[in-house]
Amino acid sequence: MGFKLYDLAGDSDARRFSPPCWRVKMALRHLGLQAEEIPWRFTEKEAISFSGQKLVPVLVDGDKTITDSWEIARYLEAAYPDRPRLFGGSVGEAEALFIKFWCEQTIHPVMLRIILPDLFQHLHENDKAYFRESREKRFGMTLEEFASPTDETIASLRKSLSPLRATLECQPYIGGTSPVFADYIVFAAFQWARAMSPIQLLEPEDPVYAWRVRLLDAFDGYARSALGYTV
Amino acid sequence: MGFKLYDLAGDSDARRFSPPCWRVKMALRHLGLQAEEIPWRFTEKEAISFSGQKLVPVLVDGDKTITDSWEIARYLEAAYPDRPRLFGGSVGEAEALFIKFWCEQTIHPVMLRIILPDLFQHLHENDKAYFRESREKRFGMTLEEFASPTDETIASLRKSLSPLRATLECQPYIGGTSPVFADYIVFAAFQWARAMSPIQLLEPEDPVYAWRVRLLDAFDGYARSALGYTV
Repeated sequence: MGFKLYDLAGDSDARRFSPPCWRVKMALRHLGLQAEEIPWRFTEKEAISFSGQKLVPVLVDGDKTITDSWEIARYLEAAYPDRPRLFGGSVGEAEALFIKFWCEQTIHPVMLRIILPDLFQHLHENDKAYFRESREKRFGMTLEEFASPTDETIASLRKSLSPLRATLECQPYIGGTSPVFADYIVFAAFQWARAMSPIQLLEPEDPVYAWRVRLLDAFDGYARSALGYTV
Repeated sequence: MGFKLYDLAGDSDARRFSPPCWRVKMALRHLGLQAEEIPWRFTEKEAISFSGQKLVPVLVDGDKTITDSWEIARYLEAAYPDRPRLFGGSVGEAEALFIKFWCEQTIHPVMLRIILPDLFQHLHENDKAYFRESREKRFGMTLEEFASPTDETIASLRKSLSPLRATLECQPYIGGTSPVFADYIVFAAFQWARAMSPIQLLEPEDPVYAWRVRLLDAFDGYARSALGYTV
C-alpha cells in the first residue's frame, strides 16, 4: 500500500506518544492497513514542510498527503469504502466529533497535568526547549506550575471519565459491540500517558480499565507492543 | 395512531418540565407522530401503575406500554422503520448513549442547582412534599443548600457546555446536518429550565443558543409553544 505516517517520537525512536498520531495508527489497523511509521520530533519542521503545515500526524498515501487526525480519519473512510467503517455513517461521524471535543477539553488537560513531569523527561533532548517555550505560552504558566502529578488530580481525572465509565457499563465500546474512531480518540489519550509515565491512572476494577485492555489487545496487541509503561 | 404519553406537569396542566418526557416528545415529532400528552404529577403513582413502575415518561402505543426515555426511543426506532431515524444506525445509537450520560452527569446537576428555587415554586402543590423529601435524600442536603442560582454557577454551566459548543461551531446539530435523539437529550434539559425558570442560561452569541433556537423552531415551533419563559 505504501502508506507513510510521520509519528511523534520521544527520547528513543521507539517511544511514540502523540495522541493524534495514535488515533491514526489505530484507525489504519482498524481498516487492515499498515503504514511505515517514521519517527519525527517537534523541531523537525522541515521534514514535513511538504505537507504545508508544521504538525503531525502527516499521512502520505501514494501521491496524497493528509494532515490532522480528524481529516485523516475522514479521508480513510472515504478512500477505502470496502474496509471496516471508522464512523458507522454520518450520525456516527457527527457524534464522534462531540466525543473528540469532550476528550480534548475534559480529559487531555487533566491527564497532561498528571503525566507532565514524566513526559518532559522522555522528550528528545532537541525538543525540550521548544516544548517548554510553546507549552508555557499556551498554559500561561511554567511547566512546573502546570504539572500536578497528585492523588487529587488522578481522582479528578477518574471523575471526568464518568460518562465514559457509565457507557462502558452498558456496552463494550463507545461504538457499541465493536470499536470505532471515537474509541480510538479516547484510547489515544491513554497511549500518550502509557508511553511516558509510570503513574497508574485507572484502577483495575474500573470499566474504563477493561476497555483499555481490550484496545491494547486489539490488532494482535498492536498498541500494547509499543514502548511504554505497563500500567 | 392513538399514542398516549404520561407527561410530568407542574402548577398548571400546561407546564411540562420533565427532561426525559421532552426527549420522547421531540422524538415522536421527529418521526411525525403525535401523542395525547396526559398531565401527570409525581404523586399520582396509581395512574401509571399499569406500567409496572413509578416514573414518567410512560408511552402507550396500542396494546404496548414502554417506559424509560432511552427505551422508548429504541422502541420507536424499531417499531417505525419507515420514519426518519432517531439514531442513524448502531454506532449513532451507541455514541448517543455516551452523550446521554454526559448530559445527565455534567449538565443536569449544575442546571438544577440554578433553576431549583424557581422549579420548586412551579411544582404542583400536591408534589412539593414528595419532591422535597425524595430530592433531599438524593442530594444528601436540603433543597436550599443544594440550590445555587448564582452568576458563578451559570458560568460553570456555560463552561460545562464547552464540548457541545465546539461541536456546534462545526455543524448545526449534534447529529450533523439534522437533529437526532442525542440533540433531543440535551435540548430536553433546556426545556426543563425554560418551563420553570426566568434565569437566562445562555448568551445570545453562544452557538448553543442558536442551536436551541433551531430546536425551538423545529416541528412548527412545537417546543416553543409550550408554557415557559422566553429566555
